Amino acid sequence: MNEAAITLDGWYVLHDFRAIDWASWKLISQEEREAATAEFITFLEKINQADIDKTGSHAFYTIVGQKADFMLMTLRETMEELNDIEIAFNKLAIADFTIPTYSYVSVVELSNYLAGESSEDPYQNPHVRARLYPELPRWNHVCFYPMDKRREGNDNWYMLDMETRKKLMYSHGLIGRSYAGKVKQIISGSVGFDDHEWGVTLFANDVLQFKKIVYEMRFDEVSARYGEFGEFLVGNLLDHDKLRNMLAI
Amino acid sequence: MNEAAITLDGWYVLHDFRAIDWASWKLISQEEREAATAEFITFLEKINQADIDKTGSHAFYTIVGQKADFMLMTLRETMEELNDIEIAFNKLAIADFTIPTYSYVSVVELSNYLAGESSEDPYQNPHVRARLYPELPRWNHVCFYPMDKRREGNDNWYMLDMETRKKLMYSHGLIGRSYAGKVKQIISGSVGFDDHEWGVTLFANDVLQFKKIVYEMRFDEVSARYGEFGEFLVGNLLDHDKLRNMLAI
Amino acid sequence: MNEAAITLDGWYVLHDFRAIDWASWKLISQEEREAATAEFITFLEKINQADIDKTGSHAFYTIVGQKADFMLMTLRETMEELNDIEIAFNKLAIADFTIPTYSYVSVVELSNYLAGESSEDPYQNPHVRARLYPELPRWNHVCFYPMDKRREGNDNWYMLDMETRKKLMYSHGLIGRSYAGKVKQIISGSVGFDDHEWGVTLFANDVLQFKKIVYEMRFDEVSARYGEFGEFLVGNLLDHDKLRNMLAI
Amino acid sequence: MNEAAITLDGWYVLHDFRAIDWASWKLISQEEREAATAEFITFLEKINQADIDKTGSHAFYTIVGQKADFMLMTLRETMEELNDIEIAFNKLAIADFTIPTYSYVSVVELSNYLAGESSEDPYQNPHVRARLYPELPRWNHVCFYPMDKRREGNDNWYMLDMETRKKLMYSHGLIGRSYAGKVKQIISGSVGFDDHEWGVTLFANDVLQFKKIVYEMRFDEVSARYGEFGEFLVGNLLDHDKLRNMLAI
Amino acid sequence: MNEAAITLDGWYVLHDFRAIDWASWKLISQEEREAATAEFITFLEKINQADIDKTGSHAFYTIVGQKADFMLMTLRETMEELNDIEIAFNKLAIADFTIPTYSYVSVVELSNYLAGESSEDPYQNPHVRARLYPELPRWNHVCFYPMDKRREGNDNWYMLDMETRKKLMYSHGLIGRSYAGKVKQIISGSVGFDDHEWGVTLFANDVLQFKKIVYEMRFDEVSARYGEFGEFLVGNLLDHDKLRNMLAI
Repeated sequence: MNEAAITLDGWYVLHDFRAIDWASWKLISQEEREAATAEFITFLEKINQADIDKTGSHAFYTIVGQKADFMLMTLRETMEELNDIEIAFNKLAIADFTIPTYSYVSVVELSNYLAGESSEDPYQNPHVRARLYPELPRWNHVCFYPMDKRREGNDNWYMLDMETRKKLMYSHGLIGRSYAGKVKQIISGSVGFDDHEWGVTLFANDVLQFKKIVYEMRFDEVSARYGEFGEFLVGNLLDHDKLRNMLAI
Repeated sequence: MNEAAITLDGWYVLHDFRAIDWASWKLISQEEREAATAEFITFLEKINQADIDKTGSHAFYTIVGQKADFMLMTLRETMEELNDIEIAFNKLAIADFTIPTYSYVSVVELSNYLAGESSEDPYQNPHVRARLYPELPRWNHVCFYPMDKRREGNDNWYMLDMETRKKLMYSHGLIGRSYAGKVKQIISGSVGFDDHEWGVTLFANDVLQFKKIVYEMRFDEVSARYGEFGEFLVGNLLDHDKLRNMLAI
Repeated sequence: MNEAAITLDGWYVLHDFRAIDWASWKLISQEEREAATAEFITFLEKINQADIDKTGSHAFYTIVGQKADFMLMTLRETMEELNDIEIAFNKLAIADFTIPTYSYVSVVELSNYLAGESSEDPYQNPHVRARLYPELPRWNHVCFYPMDKRREGNDNWYMLDMETRKKLMYSHGLIGRSYAGKVKQIISGSVGFDDHEWGVTLFANDVLQFKKIVYEMRFDEVSARYGEFGEFLVGNLLDHDKLRNMLAI
Repeated sequence: MNEAAITLDGWYVLHDFRAIDWASWKLISQEEREAATAEFITFLEKINQADIDKTGSHAFYTIVGQKADFMLMTLRETMEELNDIEIAFNKLAIADFTIPTYSYVSVVELSNYLAGESSEDPYQNPHVRARLYPELPRWNHVCFYPMDKRREGNDNWYMLDMETRKKLMYSHGLIGRSYAGKVKQIISGSVGFDDHEWGVTLFANDVLQFKKIVYEMRFDEVSARYGEFGEFLVGNLLDHDKLRNMLAI
Repeated sequence: MNEAAITLDGWYVLHDFRAIDWASWKLISQEEREAATAEFITFLEKINQADIDKTGSHAFYTIVGQKADFMLMTLRETMEELNDIEIAFNKLAIADFTIPTYSYVSVVELSNYLAGESSEDPYQNPHVRARLYPELPRWNHVCFYPMDKRREGNDNWYMLDMETRKKLMYSHGLIGRSYAGKVKQIISGSVGFDDHEWGVTLFANDVLQFKKIVYEMRFDEVSARYGEFGEFLVGNLLDHDKLRNMLAI
């Protein structure tokens, strides 16, 4: 057997994308809409308590285009908590006016491709911890896409030896690093959890940086020969005021 | 013709995934919801009678993300019983508030790749029987995915000779065995029954073990070159109390 | 041009798969349900008149899992009759409580791959006629799947010469013959009629024989290199009593 | 750059496939159904005026199986007229009881693969005109399917030189010609208009001829190596009486 | 790493395709329909203010066939504005009678494949600016399709060196230039924003030019070997009078 990559795994992640059923939302009264919006915001504040307590994190963004109207991304210590959040959302009044359009289940992941040798427990390393249990930024834009490493004919990532994979990932990582400060990247593994092998969540204040980094990486052999990409979703930061405006009829 | 693999076949299996139609569920009265929940639990207890009688087994889990809200997996001696369970479920009040999202039909299977030569009837062997007619564990998490062996260009599993397939499966089995006690794996064959060739159901108390085992196996030639994977669904154990909480509005 | 296979063609075939809309079905009164069920059974008896008159044949089975609740397969002398049956079904009361989930249009077919040379008109040969205009059995189980012969790179069935195709089909046919008495197989051609090139309908009293025959064939070069398979549906014989039970709430 | 094929282009074509929502259709009164049917027939007669005036043509057929209940195929001088017909149909009462299931936008096309050299304007040639502005026959059956020429690895139609393509198309055309009188074929180009490169509409009095011609062609290198096929739809001629019967409850 | 292409990026683009729910639209009163139509036209006039102010541009067209009834394409300086337009549309009365069928998120793009060396800031070049911030024409027809550059086996665009890509793109550009005055082409990049890598929007007064340019390009190596195409949508210019007629029952 080929040498398998080893991962460090942090918080579990649920990306939950919803479209608004605008026609139904308009049918209810102004009071009902306001109550549902207020209840939704209370729910989001409760979600945010984990951010404050450093026991989790979340991101809340619109999605541009018809794929969804908003995305709630939550990071938690257990898979059960993600499920609880999902069920709690479904019990909100607002949920009755949303249509589930896409979701993704994963866990924040660091691979050993870029790791040096060390005798210390990486889970005690503060730099590692900051990446496994990340505080999601409140930057203007989000981009999410799932991906796989290709296994096709001569382009089979999983048949490459560890040395080759490491070298390829190192070069790939250099591109990522050149976007430091412009793009924050969360890689979460979903092998055994969802249909692709990884979910990639990018944050940026300048939305154009998403295109720049993904396009530049596509010319790198790791993506060019071995990357398989699912759908891409992009959106804008939603604070409570913007949410109230969005939901006001 | 190439030498075909021979299988031993046990109980028939139905995986039934359902999403809850939360908006409709909220529309009915508290009393109606309680009655529907109680009726559902009575149904699940009746399903469980086969577990007690050792004439079948079942597993009942939530599913995380939008793919479903719960999964009922039932194992029975005949295909007719699986159909009866499905129809009985559809006649429950709760069924009217669920949306079928995915199902899978298969039969618990052991292949002869790993079997030694023996003159005894394997169906009389208690170790074999325990695997063909398994008591499903009540572990915290479940993972289900269907899969195929690839038949593409030079990566055609079904054109490999028996000796090569045996060697590859042996190495693959070693990985599985190294997860003993951490992951319980039920392989069920679905050739002729459903769209993929096998269904794989994993149970674990630590959900991360699903990712570890599937990822480690992906570097093994059997998966790397010959594995084709369908969708992955993951969830948490649902006992009656958790079910009542989930369904309480 | 490569030598094309020649076919003998018999009755036209419509496979019609329907799911039951259980929530709506429960909403109507017991009397309405009984009337709709009785009307449905009268329709099925009328369909069966062609079986008695040897001017057609039909099969009526449940389908296990969410793909459908039942399948009505009808064989008739003309495409117009299939259409008439379909429209007549849609005018039944029961139709309003069903959701069309899949259908397949084809014609019973025998290819010349296995035929010897003969100067007689094959359409007058009683053995050939029995296969082109088959009396569908009332065996316990049905399995349906559509399939294609692959045309990809070096695995292109349609670029093989006739001699090679004949040899491959001969070996394939031997497997089929070894299941005589256990599996009855109806091959119907759908080139020009539906999305795949053939529909395969299998009947068996022991449902496990479907898995055994399809799996054994998959190791044969015809399937291993040249078979492309669509979705598989499996079910149980539905007589009038079972239908009444299924539809009783 | 490789030498591109040149086309002659005639009338624009819209294939519009609709399923009937039978449950809703039964809910309205007999009078409403009769009025809607009469209005639909008046619409079809108006459509037919273009056939009479030789400014267009149309075909109206049932579709067998669940893909649709009927197909209205219209040929017109401009894309705007096709759009007008579509909108006019949607404003009919019957439209409210139909579900759009598939459509195809294209233009009747002749390629220069089979053309000899000539100094005359082909658009003035009556034989060419008869094919670009065809009077659709009222034959018993219709078959529609979209297709592409393959661009994969060594099987890339668009990388073949003109001479090779011409030779291949010539041999392909011989098969088509051998079905003269039995199958009438309309090729319409849809590059830039719809998802495939061509739509193929076949007419025959004997429905089996569709299977024979498409299957025979599949062994020809043009289809065997370079053909990619979309879905196939087949149906029966619908005159006004048959339409009235179909819609009568 | 291979040398990545560099892009200049202009206005953000949202293509929003909607089908009309005709049955519901007919259910409301004539007055309600007129009010909804008037409100929609006011909205379109507001959209058009950006065209007048040169801070954006838009195009409004019908779509032929069932894929949609109309397309609203908007170009703006920020992703937030696109989102605002989308939400504003959803709050219109007309929105309740439309079904979202497809959308595309991208940014107007010029690549450096065809650029000469220059020391000036291209964003100050008026020719470049006219292409990055284009005034969309009011030509009779529109065509939209998304596309990718292929990464498969030996046909991997992203593994070609910059020199080769430049040469291929140059030859490709020559075809485009030969349609000057007949076809106006807007290329918008969607890497990181939507499922394909580019969206292509074509405008023409003669709809046949869409077919001619796309078909001619398909024989060019860039498309023949490296082009992967998504769905194609084609339509006709919708001015306010035509819109009123379309929506009048």
